[in-house]
Amino acid sequence: MEELLKEFAVTLELPVQWGEMDAAKHVNNAVYIRWGESARITYFNELGVDSAFNEEIGPILGWQDCKYIFPVTYPDTITIGVKTVEIKSDRFMMECHMFSHRHQRLVAINKNSIIAYNYKKLKKADLPESWLEKIKKLEG
Amino acid sequence: MEELLKEFAVTLELPVQWGEMDAAKHVNNAVYIRWGESARITYFNELGVDSAFNEEIGPILGWQDCKYIFPVTYPDTITIGVKTVEIKSDRFMMECHMFSHRHQRLVAINKNSIIAYNYKKLKKADLPESWLEKIKKLEG
Amino acid sequence: MEELLKEFAVTLELPVQWGEMDAAKHVNNAVYIRWGESARITYFNELGVDSAFNEEIGPILGWQDCKYIFPVTYPDTITIGVKTVEIKSDRFMMECHMFSHRHQRLVAINKNSIIAYNYKKLKKADLPESWLEKIKKLEG
Amino acid sequence: MEELLKEFAVTLELPVQWGEMDAAKHVNNAVYIRWGESARITYFNELGVDSAFNEEIGPILGWQDCKYIFPVTYPDTITIGVKTVEIKSDRFMMECHMFSHRHQRLVAINKNSIIAYNYKKLKKADLPESWLEKIKKLEG
Repeated sequence: MEELLKEFAVTLELPVQWGEMDAAKHVNNAVYIRWGESARITYFNELGVDSAFNEEIGPILGWQDCKYIFPVTYPDTITIGVKTVEIKSDRFMMECHMFSHRHQRLVAINKNSIIAYNYKKLKKADLPESWLEKIKKLEG
Repeated sequence: MEELLKEFAVTLELPVQWGEMDAAKHVNNAVYIRWGESARITYFNELGVDSAFNEEIGPILGWQDCKYIFPVTYPDTITIGVKTVEIKSDRFMMECHMFSHRHQRLVAINKNSIIAYNYKKLKKADLPESWLEKIKKLEG
Repeated sequence: MEELLKEFAVTLELPVQWGEMDAAKHVNNAVYIRWGESARITYFNELGVDSAFNEEIGPILGWQDCKYIFPVTYPDTITIGVKTVEIKSDRFMMECHMFSHRHQRLVAINKNSIIAYNYKKLKKADLPESWLEKIKKLEG
Repeated sequence: MEELLKEFAVTLELPVQWGEMDAAKHVNNAVYIRWGESARITYFNELGVDSAFNEEIGPILGWQDCKYIFPVTYPDTITIGVKTVEIKSDRFMMECHMFSHRHQRLVAINKNSIIAYNYKKLKKADLPESWLEKIKKLEG
């Protein structure tokens, strides 16, 4: 696991809950999306980017995908590694790699396109300089 | 169903979703609690009581229970009948009776103790006179 | 709405529940994924494809994405139109277009890559001929 | 916390996830019910009672309640202490006390009435002697 996680500046560990499995007896597909969200918020907190929607310019999720690689079941613990993989003028792409402790392997990859949004003017904004600096500092 | 529902002034119909079933292949116990919440909000809307937490005095859930009577599975549709069954000085008790269309029967009873709360002073309040009038009007 | 939905052979209507909103006061991103799942299951049922995981070869979700176009809030009703947009030897791509009744517009597009999986041999399978026939019949 | 938890033979620690908050900016009431379920399953595992529904006689939840004492928000960590507080011929009552790390206090109490159920004969059963022994051993 350590080897698998060393490329990620930010990680989040979450226990699998029994009730997150569905009638197919695997963790439900939507739960991975919740895990990705939690990892995203952890990353925002690390960046010092407001995720409480109190500031004029904040992050908004424009798009996400999830590649399901290996089915997860209870009991297990998931560690999610998060990193920024691409930066454009008005958005950046964040990748969440999800690892199972029980199976010691990658189980899913969730990509997130984060847009800078002006919550006052209700329109897209350029990525604030402060975010870019923090991302660069975090990602090295 | 009509016979079963005629004692309720407020009802809400919700489809069962496949993903609401858990690994026991029944609708998960927490989903009934979500259904009860949706029925509660519908009742508040009927009362004209603010459920958007914008007013000084609003409702807050102090306690709830749920008696699980019959297991629900996908596909099905649930109708929830809501009524106030008891009024005290600072709270009232709301009962949600949940009926399965497929089985034409009662599947769960969820009781909710709703407290009047002063969101500015952060303490309990007496039930506003306006709520009492609306409840009486609704319940006849 | 009728105009917007006429290209879809299969549709599903779901009410927005208050508790599906998160602290940003919009419907949470993971809820759209649940809606897409429900639409997918409805489509499988229309195809006559087993979604109860009782047959040797069944569908499995290999990948999905979601483009978030417009924020949804309670109260609203969502209609999801589903169609197959691409067929390969071992998978097909299903698109779910989500429409808000309140805003009379498209709010999200969710794509799903459905793989044929042999649950006995625990490996991918070719798409059964019966599925292809049903998809062609449904999509015209 | 240690002091608060010392009366519980079984405990479970869960991180609060941002997406578990609702539009009232508190953890949604249904999430506590999910936490109670996870604690219940942990307790069953400690008892050696099958929670995978593979045996003839298994546990089923007949009733639960939840007293909401203090609102929880992200970020926080919850520890749930579980204990059996009453045993009858065909059921036992399990109490889950939920504690916030951030506020170092009790935030909710969730009671669960667990019934022994014969999944083959589809009717209630007497509590198996083996469960009683395990509960007594666990609770001392």
